[in-house]
Order: sequence, then C-alpha cells, then structure tokens
Amino acid sequence: MVFKRETLANLLSVSEARTRILDKFSPLNGEKVRLEDALDRILFDDVFASQELPPFSNSGMDGFAVRAADIIQASREYPITLKVSMDIPAGKAASGTLKNGEAARIMTGAMLPDGADSIVPLENTDSSEKEKDISGQPVKVFQPVQKGEFVRPKGQDLPAGQLVLTAGRKLQPQDIGLLATLGQVEVNVFRHPKVAVLSSGDEILPPEAPLTPGKIHDSNTYTISALVKQAGGTAFNLGIAEDKLEKVRQRLDQAVDLSVDLILTTAGVSVGAFDFIRTLVESEGQLDFWRVNMRPGKPVAFGSYKGIPLIGLPGNPVSAYVGFEVFVRPTIGKLSGLGNLSHPITRVRLGEPVESDGRESYLRAFLSTENDSPTAYLAGHQGSGNLFSLVLANALLIVPSGVKSLPIGTEIDAWILNIC
Amino acid sequence: MVFKRETLANLLSVSEARTRILDKFSPLNGEKVRLEDALDRILFDDVFASQELPPFSNSGMDGFAVRAADIIQASREYPITLKVSMDIPAGKAASGTLKNGEAARIMTGAMLPDGADSIVPLENTDSSEKEKDISGQPVKVFQPVQKGEFVRPKGQDLPAGQLVLTAGRKLQPQDIGLLATLGQVEVNVFRHPKVAVLSSGDEILPPEAPLTPGKIHDSNTYTISALVKQAGGTAFNLGIAEDKLEKVRQRLDQAVDLSVDLILTTAGVSVGAFDFIRTLVESEGQLDFWRVNMRPGKPVAFGSYKGIPLIGLPGNPVSAYVGFEVFVRPTIGKLSGLGNLSHPITRVRLGEPVESDGRESYLRAFLSTENDSPTAYLAGHQGSGNLFSLVLANALLIVPSGVKSLPIGTEIDAWILNIC
Repeated sequence: MVFKRETLANLLSVSEARTRILDKFSPLNGEKVRLEDALDRILFDDVFASQELPPFSNSGMDGFAVRAADIIQASREYPITLKVSMDIPAGKAASGTLKNGEAARIMTGAMLPDGADSIVPLENTDSSEKEKDISGQPVKVFQPVQKGEFVRPKGQDLPAGQLVLTAGRKLQPQDIGLLATLGQVEVNVFRHPKVAVLSSGDEILPPEAPLTPGKIHDSNTYTISALVKQAGGTAFNLGIAEDKLEKVRQRLDQAVDLSVDLILTTAGVSVGAFDFIRTLVESEGQLDFWRVNMRPGKPVAFGSYKGIPLIGLPGNPVSAYVGFEVFVRPTIGKLSGLGNLSHPITRVRLGEPVESDGRESYLRAFLSTENDSPTAYLAGHQGSGNLFSLVLANALLIVPSGVKSLPIGTEIDAWILNIC
Repeated sequence: MVFKRETLANLLSVSEARTRILDKFSPLNGEKVRLEDALDRILFDDVFASQELPPFSNSGMDGFAVRAADIIQASREYPITLKVSMDIPAGKAASGTLKNGEAARIMTGAMLPDGADSIVPLENTDSSEKEKDISGQPVKVFQPVQKGEFVRPKGQDLPAGQLVLTAGRKLQPQDIGLLATLGQVEVNVFRHPKVAVLSSGDEILPPEAPLTPGKIHDSNTYTISALVKQAGGTAFNLGIAEDKLEKVRQRLDQAVDLSVDLILTTAGVSVGAFDFIRTLVESEGQLDFWRVNMRPGKPVAFGSYKGIPLIGLPGNPVSAYVGFEVFVRPTIGKLSGLGNLSHPITRVRLGEPVESDGRESYLRAFLSTENDSPTAYLAGHQGSGNLFSLVLANALLIVPSGVKSLPIGTEIDAWILNIC
C-alpha cells in the first residue's frame, strides 16, 4: 500500500487548533503572595483603592502654609508680614487652625493645616530657616500665591473606591508600590501552572553524555522548560524517555502523580516516537487532533492522559519552539489568568522575497531598521532542526496559509522574539 | 538670607549625569550556573560551537537512503527496483556502505550511510513498512530524486568553532537549548548585582502599620526592590530609616556588611531627609553630584559610602521610579555585563499638546494605536507623588531639555513600559 500524501486543506488550521486547545482550559485558582514576591505574577482579583491618595492635603514645597487672600498685595517692595503660628514637619499632624494673618512653616509632604489654602515657597519669603523653631516670629512674604498653589490636595492621585488594578494584569513594580501605599502586604495572584516536560526519542542523549554515532544531545527539554518558565509556569522535567511504550507510560504517570496542569511532550524526530504517546493518549485519555496545517510544526497533537491535558510538540527543535509559541504560551497564559493571550503583532517589510508551501508558516527572521521601518531578512537555514538559526533570529514572520511566495517589500505580520 | 533659585543651566544634564555614574562601574565577575537556571542570565564569555551541528548527515524524512544516480530513470510506469541492504532507525549508527543498486531504509533523524547521497520518501516507493525488518527484500522507487534531496548535511546548522553566543547576551530559551545540544550542562554568567534599598522619611510607615495623621505608607521600598529584580539585580531591603543621622548610618553600615555592589536610597520628601544621607556620604565617602536637570527627579544624588557606590533617588514615588529608569537600570545592566544599556526608543505622535519647564522631562503617557501609529496621551495627573498615574501609563515620553511646549501631532521619543 502506498502512503497517501495528506491534503493540506484537510488539516486543521492554526487558529482552529488554538481555539480547540484554549477552549479546554480555565484559569487556575488564586493564592496569596507577599508583595516582595509579586513581580510578574498575574493579579487574581480587581483591586479597588481602600483609601484616597494622598490621604491628606500636603505641601509640594518647603515653605509656609498661608491663606492666599492674606497676601494678595505682597510684593518685594511692599512685603506682607505674617505671624508664624505653627511648625509642621513631614510626618506630623498639623495641630490647630491657621487664622487670618498667620503662616505655618511647612515641609514638603507635610500636612496642610486647617484654614490654610496655599503654600508660599521659602525663597519668596525672608526666611531660609528650616531647622530651628521660629514659632511666634514674623515672616515677610514677597509675592502673592494663587489659591491652591503648591498644595497637593487629598485624593488628587486617587479617590477611595476607585478600580486601580484589573484582574489578569501582570504585576509591574509600580503596581506593587501602589498596593503597598494602599496598605497591602499581600496580594491575590493566580497560582503558577505546573507543566511537565517530557522528551522522547532513542537518538536523544542528555547533554552530559558523550555523543556516540547516530545520537544527538537533547535540546528540547531545556528550550521548552525555559519557555515554560518565561511564560509564567513551573516546569517539571521528566527527562528523556526511550522509545518504548512502558518507558513513556512511566514518565506520563509521573506527571499524573505530580498533579500537573499540563503535560508537554516533544517526540523524537523518528516517526515511531510520537506513536507511543498517541497510543497511550488514546488508551488512557482522548486524542483531539494531531496534525495542524502549519510549518514548521505540523505534527502537533492535543489530547489528554488520565484527565490531564497533553500537548504533543514535534521533535525538531524549531518545530517544538514554534509549536510552543503558537499553542502553549497562550495556554499557560490562560491557566495563569493573563488578560491578553495574543502575541503583540509588529508589521515589518520584507527585505528579501520569501517562499512558502501554502501552510501557515513561521519563518525565523532578523529585523533591522532601515529608513525608520523594521525590515526582515531570513535568519540562517530554515530547516526545522536548525536551532542556531533561531538563536540568530529576533522575530518570527507569519506567512498566511495559502500563500506560496511574497515579493521583496511586502508588509507582513511578525512576532518579536525577546532578545536583549 | 534668601535662597537663590538654581539656574537650570547650571545643573548637570541627564546624559552627563548618566555618564558620570556609568563610568564608575565595571561588570562583575562570572559564576557557573546550570542550564536549568540560566534563563535571562547574562552570558559572561563568548561561546563557540564545540562541534558541528548536526553532528552527522541525517535523513529529513522516513524513507530510503539511495544513490541519486541509481534512480535517475525511475517513474511510476517504469519503477526502478533496489535491494534493501540495511535498516537505520534513529539513534543507531549506519553500518557498512551503500552500494550501487542498494537502498537503506532510514527514519527521520537517522544517520545517512556512507555511499548514499539522497533520500526517497516512503510515499515515492511501494513500501509503507516502518517497523518490520525488510532487509534483503526489493523496493520499487517511482520517482528520481535530486542529489542531496531530503538530506540534512552535517554542519548545515553550524560549523564547529563558530561563535554562537556573544558575551553580554541575555540568555533566551533557544540559547539554552543550543548550549544543551552542544553538550554543555552549565554556563558562565555574570553574577547578579547585589543592591541595597533604603527608604527614609519620618512620614513613611510600612504598609502593615495603620496610618496616623500626617503619615503615608511606604511605596518606594516595594517599587524600587521590584525594579531591581526586574533589572537583574538581587535587592536587599534595609527597611525605612528614621530621619536621624545615627539611624541612617546604621542602615548604610548594614549595606556595607552585606558587601552590596550598589546602595540605593530614596529620601523622604522632606528637605532634611536627604541631608543625613548627604552628610554621611560626605564624611564616609564622596559626593559626586546631587542635582540633575530633569523632571521629575531633579534631586538625584551620586556618590559612595565606605567605598560602595550610592545613588540617592528622590522621595516622591514617580521621581524615584524615573530616576531608577534613567540612572539605575543602566547601572545594574553594566554591573550585570549586559551588552546593550540603552532603553529601546519608540517614536510616538502626541495626541495632545504637552507643556514642560525646560528640564529634560519624563512624562507618564498612555499610548494607543491610531491610524496604525502609536499616539500618546498624558496619563493622569503628572504630580511627582502620583503613583497611580504611573500605573495608568504604558510609556514615558521624553521631552528634551530646553523645550517648553510641544504641539499636538509632534513626533517624540518614548520608552515603552513593560505592561501586559
């Protein structure tokens, strides 16, 4: 019997496959973490301001709190003299009310006393004293101020009750600072998805083993585990399984024992390698699909093993990487509660013509800026085993399904890879 | 005596200040880490390929390894019959040389035998057998192949000795995979800079303490520690020091005991707060500068305490944040050995007019895409105490020194903030 070449049109499209995968996942539970550990975690609940900010009206300058009406006529030639009735350093409550004709010496950030409505900066007075107590003494003011000038009114930054952070946001340093200033020491975040990573293939040796003829060193375990971590998951490395049904089963059962949220396998490149995983998925779970109309990465599989979702990535290192970016990163994002699951798209100009085979293609490219616009060149040899070309690349170009060639200068979608 | 208003022109420019800071730092030492822990670490040495990749010529398809010359006349009507002389699964060395008229059954990734130069895919033969040994049997070939077709030649991805990763690169998942496939289990990276973070100010309470009149909750410790972590440093939180010389000295001495590479202080907003740090820096080290012509963040200081470099950030939360981005992130980057210390610049269009005061200004802005180009609107109230506006922002607009107003539609540089 002769193998039939699969018709590309019969294969699941990338977007159908992604939808079928994502539909099977829901965001995980939340957990409380201390603010010190909250960077890049995904917020579980909306956060509302528990108080207004600033919590009290305060001075934006070192100077004197006054009533603007008292000094409306002040000038350098005809200064107005006020009596210093109190002294308000930062961190102290103002005591008493400022009366007509009075000034309160006040430091930046200190609480505005009742009765005062404006701040005269120190340099617009005849005082330069910041330390010694000058209460009871006179101070000459050389300039009027507008009512409210140099006052930071309470609630200026934020009214109490306002929505400040939305569930699904990846927490940034300033978010953590805001939570602290609102008096929180902990925050509810989605827990990290637990992801088991299993490589298989009789040709694969761990990096520490000396190479023997016909063997190559494993890369997928390392690339995929690092991608899992980068995407916000916790990777559990199940190692390299031999191409034997019972060896693969043992490793998958380890993943079950670990109660992971997702199993990722990368099959050896040999044709039989995925067959064991497929057999086990079909007997102990369900196989949803195992081919997608894409390049590289056609042999991507999705199913479950003993109730745990499983995504089977191809064995070629670049195919596994692309499969991760297309299917697994959004899956980990959804499990993590991330609000936005889409890769940001950058439009780039082709610096050279590009050929494809009609599948939705993800091409390794190097972007450089020419005439102020990002211009893409293919990075290295595009063979799906060629990991080095992915190291050279800083973007993946997305050639849509059905397209076989694109001339130089075409505008095309790209995903920027996170290279510094 | 009347305080003189400082002339802006007398102040150090942002770029001079940054240069003076960066000139005082050198990259730290390296340390070995396991590949599992290498994500986002900065590579210490250039890495050269210790072997070629792939290490041997191998098959890109399941099929038969042949000599192209043998089947040049093959067609569906007049197939050419070869004798299957060997069977090469992935991971096994090919034994023996392929002779004229022979074919070797070969799986994807398996080693090409000597004598063979091309692969005939299974579907272009009368065989569909992948499991059973068919050595000695005949196989009919229906199509010729080009010499080299479906062969991945040894060294196609990478010749031995090639520079593959450059010192100063932040390690990406694919880099880690490449190191693994080259047989490395560890990699030399720059050690993490140790950064002490000290807040001061009598008005500052830790977030867990109930607010009393005149007090606010600390945010800087949290924002700055998270920024340190995000920039690749390890933050040591020295807590909040009272505005007393001995209290500040105690905390700075803790930083010395910890042998940190950098001390960051955020002064309380009161004028006296930085004075203690300045006094200590002047008596126990050296003060290089303490004012910069920028907004927010003018009172940025640089010096050393007992031999340890110290950057004094302003106390206002937004000023501290901007000061970090402008001066501290590149400093931590330099200590970490990072190759590129510049923020990526994005050109954006002003969606509204913008005013400045002539200092180099960093304005919180929200970018949205309009007519395919990023358009910037100011985010919230720009007061330097208003942290919430930084939470609303996704970019900092950079208004150059000397500019006081920019009309709507102006193109301007921006730093994108890392918000998801």
